[in-house]
Amino acid sequence: MASTTSPPVTYESINPKVKKCEYAVRGEIVTQAQRLQQELQENPGSHPFDEILYCNIGNPQSLGQQPVTFFREVLSLCNHPAILDRDETHGLFSSDAISRAWEILDLIPGRATGAYSHSQGVKGLREAIAAGITARDGFPAKADDIFLTDGASPAVHMMMQLLIRSEKDGILCPIPQYPLYSASIALHGGSLVPYYLDEATGWGLEIFEVKRQLEDARSKGIIVRALVVINPGNPTGQVLSEANQREIVEFCKKEGLVLLADEVYQENIYVENKQFNSFKKISRMMGYDEELSLVSFQSVSKGYYGECGKRGGYMEVIGFTPDVREQIYKVASVNLCSNISGQILTSLVMNPPKVGDESYESFIAEKEGILQSLARRAQALEDAFNSLEGVTCNKAEGAMYLFPRLRLPQKAIDAAKSVNTAPDGFYARRLLEATGIVVVPGSGFGQVPGTWHIRCTILPQEDKIPAIISRLRAFHETFMNEFRD
Amino acid sequence: MASTTSPPVTYESINPKVKKCEYAVRGEIVTQAQRLQQELQENPGSHPFDEILYCNIGNPQSLGQQPVTFFREVLSLCNHPAILDRDETHGLFSSDAISRAWEILDLIPGRATGAYSHSQGVKGLREAIAAGITARDGFPAKADDIFLTDGASPAVHMMMQLLIRSEKDGILCPIPQYPLYSASIALHGGSLVPYYLDEATGWGLEIFEVKRQLEDARSKGIIVRALVVINPGNPTGQVLSEANQREIVEFCKKEGLVLLADEVYQENIYVENKQFNSFKKISRMMGYDEELSLVSFQSVSKGYYGECGKRGGYMEVIGFTPDVREQIYKVASVNLCSNISGQILTSLVMNPPKVGDESYESFIAEKEGILQSLARRAQALEDAFNSLEGVTCNKAEGAMYLFPRLRLPQKAIDAAKSVNTAPDGFYARRLLEATGIVVVPGSGFGQVPGTWHIRCTILPQEDKIPAIISRLRAFHETFMNEFRD
Repeated sequence: MASTTSPPVTYESINPKVKKCEYAVRGEIVTQAQRLQQELQENPGSHPFDEILYCNIGNPQSLGQQPVTFFREVLSLCNHPAILDRDETHGLFSSDAISRAWEILDLIPGRATGAYSHSQGVKGLREAIAAGITARDGFPAKADDIFLTDGASPAVHMMMQLLIRSEKDGILCPIPQYPLYSASIALHGGSLVPYYLDEATGWGLEIFEVKRQLEDARSKGIIVRALVVINPGNPTGQVLSEANQREIVEFCKKEGLVLLADEVYQENIYVENKQFNSFKKISRMMGYDEELSLVSFQSVSKGYYGECGKRGGYMEVIGFTPDVREQIYKVASVNLCSNISGQILTSLVMNPPKVGDESYESFIAEKEGILQSLARRAQALEDAFNSLEGVTCNKAEGAMYLFPRLRLPQKAIDAAKSVNTAPDGFYARRLLEATGIVVVPGSGFGQVPGTWHIRCTILPQEDKIPAIISRLRAFHETFMNEFRD
Repeated sequence: MASTTSPPVTYESINPKVKKCEYAVRGEIVTQAQRLQQELQENPGSHPFDEILYCNIGNPQSLGQQPVTFFREVLSLCNHPAILDRDETHGLFSSDAISRAWEILDLIPGRATGAYSHSQGVKGLREAIAAGITARDGFPAKADDIFLTDGASPAVHMMMQLLIRSEKDGILCPIPQYPLYSASIALHGGSLVPYYLDEATGWGLEIFEVKRQLEDARSKGIIVRALVVINPGNPTGQVLSEANQREIVEFCKKEGLVLLADEVYQENIYVENKQFNSFKKISRMMGYDEELSLVSFQSVSKGYYGECGKRGGYMEVIGFTPDVREQIYKVASVNLCSNISGQILTSLVMNPPKVGDESYESFIAEKEGILQSLARRAQALEDAFNSLEGVTCNKAEGAMYLFPRLRLPQKAIDAAKSVNTAPDGFYARRLLEATGIVVVPGSGFGQVPGTWHIRCTILPQEDKIPAIISRLRAFHETFMNEFRD
C-alpha cells in the first residue's frame, strides 16, 4: 500500500524559526561523542581512551556527583507518603527529613503530590521559596511573584514569548552567552542584540558597550525590550560587582528595558573576594520597588545540589502591570503546572536544613565538600589551560565552566576551513577523538570575531582531574606540533 | 526614587499571540472558585456549601483518588537509591518494587536520577516504553521514535511549533476540543480549522465534515498541515470505532496531513462494547509503515493512575524524514530533557506489574477498583444530567468528562447577555455560587453556535456523588424556575 505522494512535512516546509535555532551544548560534537561511546561499548579498545567525559554540559551528577542526602530523603518520602507513619521509616530516614515531608505535604491541598497544582505552583511552596529569597536578600519577596517551572529554560521561553512580537523586537544578550537565549529568541522570531563581554578584564560587563549596542540596534529600527544578564556568568564564570549591578539596574530603568537576570549559579561562587547579590536585592537597595521590571531565574539544576534531572526552578516576576501579569499567568495555566517533585525540591534548596536540625551538620558537610571541591577543580583546570601553549584562561569566579581562549596556528585554521568547520570546532573535534573529552566550541556561545574558545565544565570528579589534565596537555602538544606555523 | 517613565511592558506592547490565546479549563470560573474557597477558609459558613468541588479539570488526585502503590514505591526508591540496600527497606516496600527500582537505575547511565538525560529521555526507559507499545498494539515500536516530555502539553506545543509558519498554516481540530489545541495554535500564530463532531450520533467524527472543512479552508488559501483527533474524546468522551479510525488514516494519507493523535485517555474506557485502538496499530493493520506521518501523545496524568503532578508523558513520532526528525530533536535538546521521575513513571505505566510479580494482585485490585468506580460515576452523573429539565447528555464511553447540552430558557439567555456573558458561562457561574461545583462552560471548548454545554469531570469520589447530584438537581430546578419563559 506504499504511496508515492510526498510526505506532508519536509525540511523545506517546517517553521523557519525552528531551522534557525541552534543549541551547541548538545550539538554536533555531542552527537559524535555519543557515537564514540557506542563504539567503545560494542568494541572496547577501539579508541585511545576508555570512557567519554562529558564536559560539554553543566550536569554534575552525570559525572558522579552524589545528590544531597536530605533533599533526596524528603523527595522520596513525599513520593510515597504511605510510609511516613511506619516505624521502619525512622530507621531509614533522618527525623528532620520526615518532619519536613509532613510539613510539605501539609502545604499541598489534600496532600496530593500527584495532583496538578495551582498554575504558578503550590502556594505554600511558593511561600517557602519567598521566605528563602527574603532571607537571602534582606528584602521581602512575595509568593504571588513566584512562578514555579520545570527548570529555568521554560521560564526563559515564557518571557521571550511574552516580549517578542516580530524580528523588530530585540533582546540584548551578552556575547559569549548561554545559547538557550539565542535559541529561544530564534524560536520566537526576535532579534538578538549582542553586547560583548571584555575578556581582557575577566569578562567585564561594560555599560558603555551595552549602551552602544542598544543605540546601534535602535538606529536600525529594532525595539529593544529586555537586557539579559547572566550572573555568575555562563560560559564566562565572572561574578558581577555590586557597583556594576547598580549601573545595570539604572541603565534598564532609564532605557525602559526589562532586566532578565539569569541567577541560576547563585550558589556557585569559588573566590573569597566575590559574593553573589541578586538583582532584586540591588534594585531594592537603590530604592526601586515595582518601578523596575525584573525577572530572576533560578534552577535546582545548578548550585551545589546539581539536580538537573529533577527539572525544578522558578522565576520571580517583579514590576509588571496587573494586566500583563495576568497574561503570564494565562500562559502558565495552558501548561497546567510544573512537576511537583521539582516544586518541592525548589522549596528545599531555598530552605535547606538549619542549625539544630538533625541533618544540619551532615548537610553542611556535603554542601561544603562539593563547593570546595568545585573550587579546587576550577583552579586546577584553569592552571592547566593557562599552562598550554597559546591558551589563556580567565578565572572561574563562579558557575561551572572555564572558557579558555585558543590562539591557534594559521595551519590549524586553514585545516579547519578546508573541512568547513570553525577552528574551535575543529579543535574540539580533535580533542574528543584523541581523549574522549567533550567540550563545546566557543562559536556555540558567540565570541569576538577572529577569537576562538572552548567551554569546558569543571565537573569531572576530583580524582580524575590529574588524568584529564595529562590527556589534555598531551593532546594540545600534539595538535600544536602538527599545525605549527 | 520613583520615576514617571512608563513600564517597558504594557498590555498593548506584548505579543498579540499571547493575548489571543485562551484556556478556559483554568479560566474565569476557576479564578472565581479560588476566591470563594479563600472566603470559605476565612469565613466558614459564608456560602451555602462547605467546599469547592473542582470538576473543571481532569485532576483525579486533587479530588481524593489515591496513587497506585507500586508506581509510588518505585518512584520513592529511585529518588533515594541509598536505601535500596538496607534491610528495613524490605519491610516498607514490595520486593518487586525494589527489584524494579534496581532495573530502572541500571538503565540510567551512572544510576544518576539527578542528571539530565538524553534529550529524548533515558534510552533504556524509551526501550521499556517501546516494549509496552509493542505489547499494546501487536506491532513493533522503536525507542528512537519516543520523545519523553513533561506531560503531553509540551509535546503538542513542539509539534505546533514545528508545523506552523504563519496564520496561513492551519490545523484541523475537532469542535468541541480540548483547549490546549486552540491555545497552542494561537500561541504559534496558526489558524485553527474546525470540524464539528456530531452530538446527535454520540459525538461522531464524520469524514465528510472533516473533508468539507479542509476544502473550505483550502479555498481560503489556508495550507492545512495536520489533523488533530482526540480519542477517547475530550470533552466529549466518545471512543472511535476501528472503521472510523481507518477512514481517518486513509484521509490523512490521501490529503497529506500529519495525524496528531491525542491518546492520553487510552486506558479510560467504560463501556463493554468499545475498546481503544491506537492510530499506530490501525495504520500498521492497513499496511502503512513510515508512509503516514503520525504523532501519538500519551501522558501519566490520565489513565487509572491520574498522576497529573508528575508531569510525565511521551510522543511517538512516526513517518517523518530524517532531516525533520533532526529538527524535532534539536528543539527537544534546547529544553535539555523532561523530568526523570516523570520519565520513570511513564515507563512504569507502559509496563505495569505482571502476573507472578508480588505486587500484581494488589496492583490489579487498585487499577480495577479505580476504573470500575469511574465507570459507575460516569453512569450516575450521566443519568443525573439526563434527568434534568432541558438537559441531554451523551454517554462517556471513555476519558473523564461529561459534556451535557443545556437548553436554556430565553430569559436566562437574555440575563446572560445583559451581563455580557455566554449563557453557558452564566449557568456555570450560578452553579458555582449556589453549590461550589466548578464546571467549564462549553464555549471554552467550542460548540455548534446557538448550542450550550458544560464540561463536568466524573472525578469526585464515589461517596460524594449522591450529594453532588442532589445539589446539582436542586440548583437546576431553581435556575429553571427563575428563568422559565
